[in-house]
Amino acid sequence: MQSAPIDFYFDFSSPYSYIASEWVDAVAARHGRTVNWHAILLGATFQAAELKSPVSYPIKREYAIRDFARSARHAGVPFVLPEKFPVPTQNAARVFWWLHDAVEPARAAAWGRAGLRAMFTRGVDLSDAAQLKTLAAEFGLEAEAAERVWQDARWKERLKRENDAAIAAGVFGAPFFIVDGEPFWGHDRRGQMERWLEHGPY
Amino acid sequence: MQSAPIDFYFDFSSPYSYIASEWVDAVAARHGRTVNWHAILLGATFQAAELKSPVSYPIKREYAIRDFARSARHAGVPFVLPEKFPVPTQNAARVFWWLHDAVEPARAAAWGRAGLRAMFTRGVDLSDAAQLKTLAAEFGLEAEAAERVWQDARWKERLKRENDAAIAAGVFGAPFFIVDGEPFWGHDRRGQMERWLEHGPY
Repeated sequence: MQSAPIDFYFDFSSPYSYIASEWVDAVAARHGRTVNWHAILLGATFQAAELKSPVSYPIKREYAIRDFARSARHAGVPFVLPEKFPVPTQNAARVFWWLHDAVEPARAAAWGRAGLRAMFTRGVDLSDAAQLKTLAAEFGLEAEAAERVWQDARWKERLKRENDAAIAAGVFGAPFFIVDGEPFWGHDRRGQMERWLEHGPY
Repeated sequence: MQSAPIDFYFDFSSPYSYIASEWVDAVAARHGRTVNWHAILLGATFQAAELKSPVSYPIKREYAIRDFARSARHAGVPFVLPEKFPVPTQNAARVFWWLHDAVEPARAAAWGRAGLRAMFTRGVDLSDAAQLKTLAAEFGLEAEAAERVWQDARWKERLKRENDAAIAAGVFGAPFFIVDGEPFWGHDRRGQMERWLEHGPY
């Protein structure tokens, strides 16, 4: 029996997406699944849902910052909160979709992992063109080519289409997973998602 | 060594509070702790934090309703979403604080459990005076006495003070737990909280 891939929506600027990105492929593989990675911009989904980032509310921000780090320790992954946070990550996301379409989806997923790790283990500012070009070079891309991609109307449009598709699929936050039509929002739905993968609907 | 109680903040109209209310005492007891139950009004904390209920956002509402039921099934507790939801629950909360102060905290906690179960397993509308009086009678209270409590300025003021204290303690949602000064928000932080109770700070 062929099992459908898990759709995994993430934003490069989302700490909880980073945490999930460290286990999503392994969890899927244990259940004979693959993962379709989708780089999106939370800003666009927040706007569509009239939501705001948790860290934009002062009382919630202090808790969220504590919870990011504690959740990472709980999941056993290294974590630092970048000095500048959150940051706009459309450039990294456009490079993702270029790799996805022009190279191959697996390479795009690897870029997703690399970008999230750079941001949340080394504090790399993905909104800074110089730092993003350095990261692209470390990743084995030609830095100037990467910059041309994120300035290209074609990849701007591609990302916009993906955001719209995510919103149409009901995505309003990240990380967000869809398994056989069932939506799971948050790294903290891992247990519920694993149960679904193991035993089916419950 | 004496361990401090766990502070558990809940709203009678919160499905996730209901789920947590079904395990919080057992989890605490396994780690030699007791639980201080605090009935609060999410509306007041949302206002202080400039937040809104998740179900007030259309795109999030559909997911939330699905997630309430799935989370309950995952936790192994029965669940129905009341026809009228969410509802204002200040009357049930005032009865809680009256029982807490004038009878004893354990009786208030029992009222908390009874109210949450009535609402989320039988669909009882706690905002309806007649239904709340019936529930009070089932619980062994004199129904008219319960009604006098929720109409009494003294218990209105008591609840207001508790809301203010919760907000001052950093509470902005429910369920919310504080363990030795460490805040945990959401029934989905059970794993992280249990680890804290078992091994201390991590």
